[in-house]
Amino acid sequence: MVETIQYPKKKQNKVVRYDSIADYECKTVHSIVNESPVLHVSFVVDGLPVNLPMIGQMGSFDHPSAGLDEPLDLYIHGYVSARMMNTAGTEGMKVCVCASIVDGYILTYTPYSHNYNYRSSVIHGTATLVTDPDEKLYAMTIITDKIVPGRYENSRTPPTKGELAATSILKITVDSASAKVRAGYGVESAEDIIDENKKIWTGVMPISHIFEPPVPSAYNEVPLPSYISDFIEARNKESEEYIKYSTTVAPK
Amino acid sequence: MVETIQYPKKKQNKVVRYDSIADYECKTVHSIVNESPVLHVSFVVDGLPVNLPMIGQMGSFDHPSAGLDEPLDLYIHGYVSARMMNTAGTEGMKVCVCASIVDGYILTYTPYSHNYNYRSSVIHGTATLVTDPDEKLYAMTIITDKIVPGRYENSRTPPTKGELAATSILKITVDSASAKVRAGYGVESAEDIIDENKKIWTGVMPISHIFEPPVPSAYNEVPLPSYISDFIEARNKESEEYIKYSTTVAPK
Repeated sequence: MVETIQYPKKKQNKVVRYDSIADYECKTVHSIVNESPVLHVSFVVDGLPVNLPMIGQMGSFDHPSAGLDEPLDLYIHGYVSARMMNTAGTEGMKVCVCASIVDGYILTYTPYSHNYNYRSSVIHGTATLVTDPDEKLYAMTIITDKIVPGRYENSRTPPTKGELAATSILKITVDSASAKVRAGYGVESAEDIIDENKKIWTGVMPISHIFEPPVPSAYNEVPLPSYISDFIEARNKESEEYIKYSTTVAPK
Repeated sequence: MVETIQYPKKKQNKVVRYDSIADYECKTVHSIVNESPVLHVSFVVDGLPVNLPMIGQMGSFDHPSAGLDEPLDLYIHGYVSARMMNTAGTEGMKVCVCASIVDGYILTYTPYSHNYNYRSSVIHGTATLVTDPDEKLYAMTIITDKIVPGRYENSRTPPTKGELAATSILKITVDSASAKVRAGYGVESAEDIIDENKKIWTGVMPISHIFEPPVPSAYNEVPLPSYISDFIEARNKESEEYIKYSTTVAPK
């Protein structure tokens, strides 16, 4: 059996509910974060929770060639308020980041056993402001390439001094993390498998997240480059294959 | 001009960044929550942020016929830990709920002016456990009908006493809320509109969230009912129309 790197189970990240679908592997946690267009970043201000949508990508500035199955940091791009900056700039700000992808609805005889097919990651970590210009450029590169791999080098880069100064990047070092992956058909409770319920439609309603044909801007003068069209084709194919898998596999 | 009900701008919910796309209308905030398959619910435990994916729907138990443009509560279904229950069961637990839908990526000349088309709602509120059986049934109905309108009455309902007892519902009364809606093509900064940048592809990469054909369970014996097929058709058509709108409209 191949050894995989897992996040240790601590009090903070141990999944207690539906633990059969819990997954602590670095690769699972990191893949879901990188595949989610948006992350939800929560932190505490004056004792109250704040939760904001932000864009982020897992990476390692010290070991840029590290794979998704290795320890990584989470780089977040987004508006960092003065208050956040003050907190994150000194001792670091505690954050909890959640990434979720919904793959479908599972309809069974009774609402109680309805379910979702989904993939989610939760990362508990400490956020600090990135001040090193090289690390900031590294983060800007991987966050731009999250949109389409290769976009950074195929756009007007590097950023100007003004752009660099106006961009805030938070680096989140991971304290603990976990993922949940639910895939498969629905499961009925034994007492619901009766003739009377057979009139009820049951099955999976798959949801796919599809890249539609790109719409060039009014001033665009070049054909769609292959780094974009190939990426879209590959992602849509993956999506189609995952739908097939997630609707037919036996659930854990 | 038609008067619309808006959330008052308070310190907590006033959008300071990109305030031109901020929207405080009840209808906008509530629609995004109801359209998001998953919500991210954050709260504070021992001074640290926790953020979990949960399912929820806006509604009013006291005025069930209230529209999305009227004041509503947010009913959340999901695993409520003993710790959450203790907090929410007494004086209420402060939560911040975020719903986000990503509609596309906006590629411009330089990463600095790249953007997302998206719709997001942020609700600050106070969560309490629903204990009244009638209110619990109301919440279970609207949350089931979030998946497909009409599903509750077309499945094995009402829940058994055991199911009712085993289901936790949180009611979130809204303290303040706001939404952000970014739609439209990309915007370049004046200094980037130069010949040298014309080799860069620019435009919108729309993302649609599509209901694929439902997959019946192995034991299903009935054809797909029209309340499901009609819903899927309507939602996919809406999605297609929104993509057209969001890629062509002038951004705010």
